[in-house]
Amino acid sequence: MENLFQDDKLHEECGVFGIFSHSEDVALNTYWGLYALQHRGQESTGIVVTDGKTMKVKKGMGLVPDVYKDGVGDLQGFAAIGHVRYSTTGASMAYNIQPLKVYFDGGNLALSHNGNLTNAGQLRANLAKEGAVFTTTVDTEVVLTLIAYSARPTIEERVAEAVKQIRGAYAILFMTDNKIIAVRDPYGFRPLVLGKLENGWCVASESCAFDLVGAELVRDVKPGEMVIIDSDNAEPRSVMWADKLPEKTAHCVFEYVYFARNDSVIDKQPVYDARIQMGRELAKETKEIKPDIVISAPDSGTPAAIGYALESGIPFMEGLTKNRYVGRTFIQPTQKQRANAVRLKLNPVRSVVEGKSVVMVDDSIVRGTTSGKVVKLLKEAGAREVHVCISSPPVVDSCYYGIDTSERKQLIAARCTNEEICRFIGADSLHYISMDGMKRAIGKIDPDGLCCACFSSDYPDKADEVIGQEPEGIFE
Amino acid sequence: MENLFQDDKLHEECGVFGIFSHSEDVALNTYWGLYALQHRGQESTGIVVTDGKTMKVKKGMGLVPDVYKDGVGDLQGFAAIGHVRYSTTGASMAYNIQPLKVYFDGGNLALSHNGNLTNAGQLRANLAKEGAVFTTTVDTEVVLTLIAYSARPTIEERVAEAVKQIRGAYAILFMTDNKIIAVRDPYGFRPLVLGKLENGWCVASESCAFDLVGAELVRDVKPGEMVIIDSDNAEPRSVMWADKLPEKTAHCVFEYVYFARNDSVIDKQPVYDARIQMGRELAKETKEIKPDIVISAPDSGTPAAIGYALESGIPFMEGLTKNRYVGRTFIQPTQKQRANAVRLKLNPVRSVVEGKSVVMVDDSIVRGTTSGKVVKLLKEAGAREVHVCISSPPVVDSCYYGIDTSERKQLIAARCTNEEICRFIGADSLHYISMDGMKRAIGKIDPDGLCCACFSSDYPDKADEVIGQEPEGIFE
Amino acid sequence: MENLFQDDKLHEECGVFGIFSHSEDVALNTYWGLYALQHRGQESTGIVVTDGKTMKVKKGMGLVPDVYKDGVGDLQGFAAIGHVRYSTTGASMAYNIQPLKVYFDGGNLALSHNGNLTNAGQLRANLAKEGAVFTTTVDTEVVLTLIAYSARPTIEERVAEAVKQIRGAYAILFMTDNKIIAVRDPYGFRPLVLGKLENGWCVASESCAFDLVGAELVRDVKPGEMVIIDSDNAEPRSVMWADKLPEKTAHCVFEYVYFARNDSVIDKQPVYDARIQMGRELAKETKEIKPDIVISAPDSGTPAAIGYALESGIPFMEGLTKNRYVGRTFIQPTQKQRANAVRLKLNPVRSVVEGKSVVMVDDSIVRGTTSGKVVKLLKEAGAREVHVCISSPPVVDSCYYGIDTSERKQLIAARCTNEEICRFIGADSLHYISMDGMKRAIGKIDPDGLCCACFSSDYPDKADEVIGQEPEGIFE
Amino acid sequence: MENLFQDDKLHEECGVFGIFSHSEDVALNTYWGLYALQHRGQESTGIVVTDGKTMKVKKGMGLVPDVYKDGVGDLQGFAAIGHVRYSTTGASMAYNIQPLKVYFDGGNLALSHNGNLTNAGQLRANLAKEGAVFTTTVDTEVVLTLIAYSARPTIEERVAEAVKQIRGAYAILFMTDNKIIAVRDPYGFRPLVLGKLENGWCVASESCAFDLVGAELVRDVKPGEMVIIDSDNAEPRSVMWADKLPEKTAHCVFEYVYFARNDSVIDKQPVYDARIQMGRELAKETKEIKPDIVISAPDSGTPAAIGYALESGIPFMEGLTKNRYVGRTFIQPTQKQRANAVRLKLNPVRSVVEGKSVVMVDDSIVRGTTSGKVVKLLKEAGAREVHVCISSPPVVDSCYYGIDTSERKQLIAARCTNEEICRFIGADSLHYISMDGMKRAIGKIDPDGLCCACFSSDYPDKADEVIGQEPEGIFE
Repeated sequence: MENLFQDDKLHEECGVFGIFSHSEDVALNTYWGLYALQHRGQESTGIVVTDGKTMKVKKGMGLVPDVYKDGVGDLQGFAAIGHVRYSTTGASMAYNIQPLKVYFDGGNLALSHNGNLTNAGQLRANLAKEGAVFTTTVDTEVVLTLIAYSARPTIEERVAEAVKQIRGAYAILFMTDNKIIAVRDPYGFRPLVLGKLENGWCVASESCAFDLVGAELVRDVKPGEMVIIDSDNAEPRSVMWADKLPEKTAHCVFEYVYFARNDSVIDKQPVYDARIQMGRELAKETKEIKPDIVISAPDSGTPAAIGYALESGIPFMEGLTKNRYVGRTFIQPTQKQRANAVRLKLNPVRSVVEGKSVVMVDDSIVRGTTSGKVVKLLKEAGAREVHVCISSPPVVDSCYYGIDTSERKQLIAARCTNEEICRFIGADSLHYISMDGMKRAIGKIDPDGLCCACFSSDYPDKADEVIGQEPEGIFE
Repeated sequence: MENLFQDDKLHEECGVFGIFSHSEDVALNTYWGLYALQHRGQESTGIVVTDGKTMKVKKGMGLVPDVYKDGVGDLQGFAAIGHVRYSTTGASMAYNIQPLKVYFDGGNLALSHNGNLTNAGQLRANLAKEGAVFTTTVDTEVVLTLIAYSARPTIEERVAEAVKQIRGAYAILFMTDNKIIAVRDPYGFRPLVLGKLENGWCVASESCAFDLVGAELVRDVKPGEMVIIDSDNAEPRSVMWADKLPEKTAHCVFEYVYFARNDSVIDKQPVYDARIQMGRELAKETKEIKPDIVISAPDSGTPAAIGYALESGIPFMEGLTKNRYVGRTFIQPTQKQRANAVRLKLNPVRSVVEGKSVVMVDDSIVRGTTSGKVVKLLKEAGAREVHVCISSPPVVDSCYYGIDTSERKQLIAARCTNEEICRFIGADSLHYISMDGMKRAIGKIDPDGLCCACFSSDYPDKADEVIGQEPEGIFE
Repeated sequence: MENLFQDDKLHEECGVFGIFSHSEDVALNTYWGLYALQHRGQESTGIVVTDGKTMKVKKGMGLVPDVYKDGVGDLQGFAAIGHVRYSTTGASMAYNIQPLKVYFDGGNLALSHNGNLTNAGQLRANLAKEGAVFTTTVDTEVVLTLIAYSARPTIEERVAEAVKQIRGAYAILFMTDNKIIAVRDPYGFRPLVLGKLENGWCVASESCAFDLVGAELVRDVKPGEMVIIDSDNAEPRSVMWADKLPEKTAHCVFEYVYFARNDSVIDKQPVYDARIQMGRELAKETKEIKPDIVISAPDSGTPAAIGYALESGIPFMEGLTKNRYVGRTFIQPTQKQRANAVRLKLNPVRSVVEGKSVVMVDDSIVRGTTSGKVVKLLKEAGAREVHVCISSPPVVDSCYYGIDTSERKQLIAARCTNEEICRFIGADSLHYISMDGMKRAIGKIDPDGLCCACFSSDYPDKADEVIGQEPEGIFE
Repeated sequence: MENLFQDDKLHEECGVFGIFSHSEDVALNTYWGLYALQHRGQESTGIVVTDGKTMKVKKGMGLVPDVYKDGVGDLQGFAAIGHVRYSTTGASMAYNIQPLKVYFDGGNLALSHNGNLTNAGQLRANLAKEGAVFTTTVDTEVVLTLIAYSARPTIEERVAEAVKQIRGAYAILFMTDNKIIAVRDPYGFRPLVLGKLENGWCVASESCAFDLVGAELVRDVKPGEMVIIDSDNAEPRSVMWADKLPEKTAHCVFEYVYFARNDSVIDKQPVYDARIQMGRELAKETKEIKPDIVISAPDSGTPAAIGYALESGIPFMEGLTKNRYVGRTFIQPTQKQRANAVRLKLNPVRSVVEGKSVVMVDDSIVRGTTSGKVVKLLKEAGAREVHVCISSPPVVDSCYYGIDTSERKQLIAARCTNEEICRFIGADSLHYISMDGMKRAIGKIDPDGLCCACFSSDYPDKADEVIGQEPEGIFE
């Protein structure tokens, strides 16, 4: 049965946060950092803290405030890494909650990973042949074993040797008994930023986490870079570990379209600006529509809707009210009520839309399950015309870089033409932004340095790896 | 210690919902109705269902989806009433959760109340002298005893006799073993609407509840009216029970300012329209400010901010990001972090406000505890000027009609001048809408038919009752 | 479906505890007192404390340690009453948890009741005609209303006027804002004892509660007596409130057979002594059996089994092991396992019973559902003969005095002869103690002063009341 | 602060259960088996089930009925192993709950362990040098890695190679995707029994688990044996894997003194018989005492007390009542009440002990924290003399074989003479059974084949291993 609360979005799979400081409560700061990154993963969360000798762990299924509702006062130390994970349906088991932590011949080693490894299955099979045992179904577990098996003398070299063997997208925080090592893949698929505390350092998936802990955004970790933090005040050491960098970066464009928070800055591009600009580009591309009013599919469609309104001069109003109390648990509605169930989340404001020609701006259509219902609601509330404008191109292919796309066959744009989708959702017209328009909106980044594979099927690392089957990463 | 999550708002104390239908699952519909009314009360909720002989009850502290997470399948019948209640700090005891239900000589009797009775203490003392016992500290309990003590032959007459003795603000749903009786006070302080199902009837605090259960808004219950529902299809009987109606109604103006949902229509006035219009009026009244941009304190300030932008022609943007995952439980921040704690809920979007002169529109300032922190965040994020515009006049006095105002002495506008408040919150200027401007924005209602006592200290029923002490209603 | 964990016992419906002291933590002492009385009721529990002005309440479904797991530190005052209630299947609703507490014209009034009123329904109907409303289905609620309706000048007189109108069995603790009033019915059906603290007083259903709080057993509250405690040190006032006492008391014999704890002393009779003596009487009455060994159905059959062994000179051993971890929740066994399910609680010790002729002593057989299974286990474990000896006579009729007997038709001895029951349970022989033997064992009490109605159908108060229908007391 | 509910006992650290059957619900049977073994561990429990391809796991902290309260219906397969673990204070972390389960090059591998490895730390360090990573602090985790690293062709050979490298006490159940392998150490420290179902096989720590699942006790797994179960009906294969067996077995004598359940038979010795016999031996050794009555410290002292009474002819009675509702959570008593707090668990029966000379039989004294309190209670209840008789010798040294003894310095008999202990606990005399008396009571086992190291400091495997430091096994 269709899950009423499943939204029709792509989903980020994880967020990571790390902190090194002898004068801060590192566990509490990690808690706040994860709170700010909660939009990147709501299924489970964990924090690992080191005091130089032992590592303490707190983990659980659920949201950050719930998992740590009894506090983190028992996690004392000078460095910590944390993780939030998205709820994918499959292997939501307690033993898969990150950070992972092991004991090896170099002491304790913990790890938080955002991304997806494309050769984890092969590496795992090879390692098992050498006697390795695995306790999770998380692809990242192989990285820990690669490090343990490395014969290099220093932990930095062992990490470098290990990450050279993995393929795919990753921003990884490692923590040993006395340092944090942050690594970003050579393409820079997933974001990773470095921040400075008064007396210490932070690393996080997004800069919005720094605002909450009072850190200042210093810079992005570079694609192919390893940043080693082992002092409160000395500048972290930087090592460009990758033997060879690809010619172009491949920063995930969907971070700007939907994933990241409005208040984050990723790879120097402020996220909100990009979204306003996408709305403006969309307005330029759809001048033939002459609506009375611009509305958004809240909340993610709102920045582009405002941009659209600013560019077109057509008024923006909130044509749909979002219920702020919708949670994860609810009673299944009767069959009769199912048609109305979308109203649990969104209800039209009749006085805004009645008798009007409306442009509704949304950030994306993935499976197409929700848009049709919303268009129907708007029409029932009296909208004369409903034009749907999407601030990203049609999603036509799967992601292998840490995004939970549906299977390809569930992607409506992989199966249907624009007209078919428009008819399916019952809109008067349907417009996607052009690829160029979208890229133009992200003005701080070289248009060729963005990964747009889910729109174009053009996978940046296809020369490196066999791509084409569904992403593995989950072994069971 | 200051509660970090206490917002600086007035609070509605309750929402009510009732349904009568032999062909619907009345408990499930009440659940959905309460879901839509959750914004009117998050502390506790209850549902009572009658099958003609017995009444079954389900109650609990917490949000609607949590209290009924095991379903309402055990509540079978043809009529139900429900209730959501706001979390006031005092008597949040389980035995105070509504609906109240008693057994009396007329059978079972249940009650859901939105409002506040100003003479409950006196009535309670009188009844106690006649041998009555009370089991809750809810003011409404006296109404049940007044009905039980009435010697009138029919339940309708007993209810009428009872409500004639009470003073204050109320929208009450009574349920007997076989009918629902909805009563609204003669001033119409609190909203109450009647809706039609295909085969049955609904009553609710706001029309947004009807959208979710698939009912059509028929009309408002009139001030001083009793509506009796005892048939799925026959038009409910209407009795104007009040001996004498006041010359003017006294519809609560704060429902339009803040309480009600954007998508509700109360006493024929669409709520969202009033809010947009308040923003327009505010813009007209503050033409001397020449900001670069209009932002809102999300989410409640957004409609007026949009109205302000539409009137002034200055662009509206989201200058503050709201964390959608902020819940009720959280770890207390360290002293150092407290300054940052408002960022748990709101974080500025630097690229929007940096270097700009900003108008921030909010719906109200009550104690003034939050505004200063937000202004500070905006300045730290680079805003050149911050002008605060409020879409309601200064709140200077307590409410006796079902709103949880702070004590008078906590109301900043009761103690300070405009300039003092402006200085206190660190804004470059501070503007409240004028009383006339606010009333004009609520165009469908006679300006003299609104209760604005919290702004004017002009209590509509002062001739009826001794007003002046803090509201009672809670006896312990 | 048969409840695997329902034992085949009669069940006490309640235990009460009260304390008055300005130098003790009264809530904490009530907690310990209820802990000691937990065997009298496992369904729900409550504590009410007065500080002279307000009464604070803590209640919940479940065992004492669970309900108060967050402590009782918020219940401060100088007097408290508490209650534990047995899990009857019917109206286990939160609103029925005792102590009940109301507000009336004399202030606050709380009540804990052990017993059953036989005319509660009639009283309730009469009071409802006078305008009374009821919020629970607990029979005792009428007592509160009778007190509130009384026109007498003092609370003592109002209580006396009220209890004169009720019929049945009761030990009631009342608490007003400044005193505790303990009342026992004229027959003395249910136990109630008075204890002295160094600086204060206690009342409880059984003296074992005094041992835990450090009080000394002073005496039993007398049938028809009211004890008023309003001073830490002055002797409580005693009022013989009943206009007329019955010629004989009617102390419940089952308290000695099964309900009370081994370490309690009730109406001057040590409970354990009576049980040992019942075993001795049983041995005298069954000299024709020549077993090799005496075992008990643990734990309640053990004292009588030891008495039997002492009298007969036949060795006592533990032939059945009780699983100490059996709780209330468990997975339903498959059909195949159901035969073995009694082993969850009891498993034979093969080396004890193998090849032996065994006497198994138990305290009672009610529905006969368990005994047969245990006999079968013993035979499977190799017992050559199993003789079942019961330390009470056959239960043939319902109790109207506060005991949860099954319905009469479920009582196996009401339907079957001794031989039929013996055959049904598969024993080699079955022996019940004689009525006289049982009474003799309770040597401190006049044999005519015991209520044995469940064995004899001879109801002590049948002249007072219409007896014969199933006990009411629960209205829904 | 002293834990009021910590009893003064040695504690078994674990219980294991395994089942192989294509016609039983293996998970449900494991649940019942663990229910019967709950006395061997109350901290945590887990079940792993294989269907030939995947292994499903259910684990949690707490008692068996609580952890599996939602059932085990999702665990389908034809073989299962389970575990219960005792609550030691240290590393009660979720990731340490057994069974452990890993993926290795031979597929899935799970393990349940009862015992303690004395060389786990050394093995772990060696393996880490070869690249192994560890995720728990459970000593048994090394066994899994030893198996994974083994180059032998079959799983049976790999297991044998692994267990040859470990030292100490162990009964281990391994489960692969299609078989169960049970292994017992060469000394037979810990018990392990094999049972037959109608269509399948069981292995368990104690035979009482077989009674509940309907299996028949076949035999003990032999010291140094490996039993391989991979067929429902074929006799399991047996391999004597140990290169060399020690001359004498070393069956843990404390299983007979206290750990095992009365109804179990271990290494052919019925447990209950041994306990009765210990009481008899104790009576023979203490003929100089002439008490009026024999009582026990319930429940564990009862069998020996009965044996004592049978041998001496002095009557046995229950002089102490045990509260059957004492749980793990409770409110801390005030300082004043602490003296009484032992009464939460045990309360004297005054009528039994008053004026009497009493022998109280208990199974052991470890730290001596409880005995003194109980003696005091008995004296306060009027006992004229209290003689304490212990059915095991003084515990003077730590156990390295899977028993949670206190640290040596906490063992009262390691520090004090008999007279000192007697004075400390306030008894009139104190008698421990002699070593020979205890051994004689366990008549089915060669007296030299028992491990009595905690009484004698004579460690059976001292030739094999460096013994003398506190047991490791827990690494953090």
